[in-house]
Amino acid sequence: MTPYASLDPRQRILMGPGPSTVPNRILRALGSPTLGHLDPQYIGYMDETCQMMRDVFGTTNPLTFPVSGTGMAGMEAVMVNLIEPGDEVIVCINGVFGGRMKDNMQRCGATVHTVEVPWGKTISEEAIAEAVAKHPRATMVGIVHAETSTGALQSLPEISQVVHDAGMLFAVDAVTSMGGHELKVDDWQIDAIYSGTQKCLSCPPGLSPVSFSPAAVEKMDARKTPVQSWYLDVSMLRNYYTGGGASSGARAYHHTAPINMIYALREALMIVLEEGVDQRVARHHAVHLELRSGLEAMGLKYIPDCSLATLNCVATPQGVDEAAVRQRLLTEYDIEIGGGLGVFAGKAWRIGLMGFGATKRNVQTLLAALKDCLETT
Amino acid sequence: MTPYASLDPRQRILMGPGPSTVPNRILRALGSPTLGHLDPQYIGYMDETCQMMRDVFGTTNPLTFPVSGTGMAGMEAVMVNLIEPGDEVIVCINGVFGGRMKDNMQRCGATVHTVEVPWGKTISEEAIAEAVAKHPRATMVGIVHAETSTGALQSLPEISQVVHDAGMLFAVDAVTSMGGHELKVDDWQIDAIYSGTQKCLSCPPGLSPVSFSPAAVEKMDARKTPVQSWYLDVSMLRNYYTGGGASSGARAYHHTAPINMIYALREALMIVLEEGVDQRVARHHAVHLELRSGLEAMGLKYIPDCSLATLNCVATPQGVDEAAVRQRLLTEYDIEIGGGLGVFAGKAWRIGLMGFGATKRNVQTLLAALKDCLETT
Repeated sequence: MTPYASLDPRQRILMGPGPSTVPNRILRALGSPTLGHLDPQYIGYMDETCQMMRDVFGTTNPLTFPVSGTGMAGMEAVMVNLIEPGDEVIVCINGVFGGRMKDNMQRCGATVHTVEVPWGKTISEEAIAEAVAKHPRATMVGIVHAETSTGALQSLPEISQVVHDAGMLFAVDAVTSMGGHELKVDDWQIDAIYSGTQKCLSCPPGLSPVSFSPAAVEKMDARKTPVQSWYLDVSMLRNYYTGGGASSGARAYHHTAPINMIYALREALMIVLEEGVDQRVARHHAVHLELRSGLEAMGLKYIPDCSLATLNCVATPQGVDEAAVRQRLLTEYDIEIGGGLGVFAGKAWRIGLMGFGATKRNVQTLLAALKDCLETT
Repeated sequence: MTPYASLDPRQRILMGPGPSTVPNRILRALGSPTLGHLDPQYIGYMDETCQMMRDVFGTTNPLTFPVSGTGMAGMEAVMVNLIEPGDEVIVCINGVFGGRMKDNMQRCGATVHTVEVPWGKTISEEAIAEAVAKHPRATMVGIVHAETSTGALQSLPEISQVVHDAGMLFAVDAVTSMGGHELKVDDWQIDAIYSGTQKCLSCPPGLSPVSFSPAAVEKMDARKTPVQSWYLDVSMLRNYYTGGGASSGARAYHHTAPINMIYALREALMIVLEEGVDQRVARHHAVHLELRSGLEAMGLKYIPDCSLATLNCVATPQGVDEAAVRQRLLTEYDIEIGGGLGVFAGKAWRIGLMGFGATKRNVQTLLAALKDCLETT
């Protein structure tokens, strides 16, 4: 006997900034029998997973695979492979995750130039044009598509054009947009992108889908220095993920892939494709409008410009203890929402509508529960 | 409809170098409902997981937690946090994983001195004494406890003494020993250790248990340069894993932990503690002896000195196509064993007896299947 109780996690409705609620179909896939990481059947599943990732990303990039870590490992994989010490890069900051990108870039030995706007605002094409003109030696511009910390949705196509006109690579954080907002890696000429499984794909956390354009691969191939991370070194990883066909012989062992997480991601992507990416984006938008109108009918206000469907950043009314409300939602209703981050700490709630959880039922349940908590606090 | 078939992984007996077969109890834990990474219930499970890791490692180190990646991420976490550019370190190489440690150390900017012996041999106390005398400025010595590539079991206590007498830190790769061989982190004065979940813990791959001694923490705290990896920076990770009690408020968000994998690891560690660590080690040894005697009765020979119970490195008889035998075992018997690595490629099999899979039944099943494959090839 050990002093520990049987595992029995509560069946919360997860409406925070992620993880989102995982449907049973994905949990069952996750709990399927473990195969070896060089088993031909597993290699087949992995190849299918990579292909479905391409379909959801809207890309034909051969180098599209899941990094064996959470979303932040994907961010780091992009940075360590595309930056060499001494490189100049540009990063856009309008919330927590742009700041993290900067931190990552600096740890890679880059000189980092920033384009900063207040939290919650988005970055203009003009600001990027100015930055690339000012720093013509920069090799890459990094930006967050959907800022989980504020709910800001960044338009990308025009900025991408400016970046490419300046001959630079375009790197995008799509952690909270993949599978929930329109995202077209090839059409928008994104050179490097990373996401997470636990947001709009409704898969548990643990993998980070990434994709690299041929131009990004060229930059990697031209490196003069080794990648500082062994675990995330794409020059080795790609032999495992894309080497040869679906036969184990052609795949060079690098690390033991998180097999069961791949099962779950495969199932999650299959669900996205069964629904249809466009239909899924439309569903997120419709459910977001329903939430917005319900919250506004209660007198609550969105943080200005925070227009993500997937992450709704709502100001806490004056005099209300935001943490106490979250606590009541969790304990009385088994509903999780998120608190504000950074400049919004203590002043806002972050309500996620992601993937499986983006439903009318959850919206109405949350509105009723929140109303109760606000009226009786 | 998508063109993809329903997920239906075969129920293989995994007797390769890992992953090992995962028992249903752990698969069910893995597929339990996902909680938020700051949910008090989840923080409680995480704290229990860290405590059980301490119990299995044989340590009271407060800084004991699962890195959110596979075993190689654990190796990298140890290296990036304990090495600063310009440090001198010593690494012992007698197989693939010592070589990887060297690669990792170099990517951290260290000057790496090696103690090398032929693959399959172990490192003597005298060789270490010579190395630390020759390189007195070295800050750390790294060594592999159980070399998965060869089956060599390295004795650690005497070497640890020599390392500490020289005032250096002692870092150990315990990927294939934790939960299967005797391992006493505190008694053996190990300063930094990493393992994997998919070997003798019989949990799917995806996490790397690590532990750091107070002396290792001191070295980290004295760093003059930032850790080159954001994802693996222990100065931030420890606020999440060990900050405050089991209340979410005290835990600083760093990245979204792989929640469901933590469930599985918690269950796996609970199973280890229910069996008892010493009893589990004894079971591995007994089953290993049974396998050895069965293989020897068939005229097969172990690679000399390859004495791991958990990983049996056996020479392929002359004239036998080692890959063809593995292929038949897989397709006709649903049994996976591993091929040789490096100098043993094409010349040896690696047979894992790990955790849940270390049973008399599996031994006898494999012996019968292997006999059939050898007699009818």
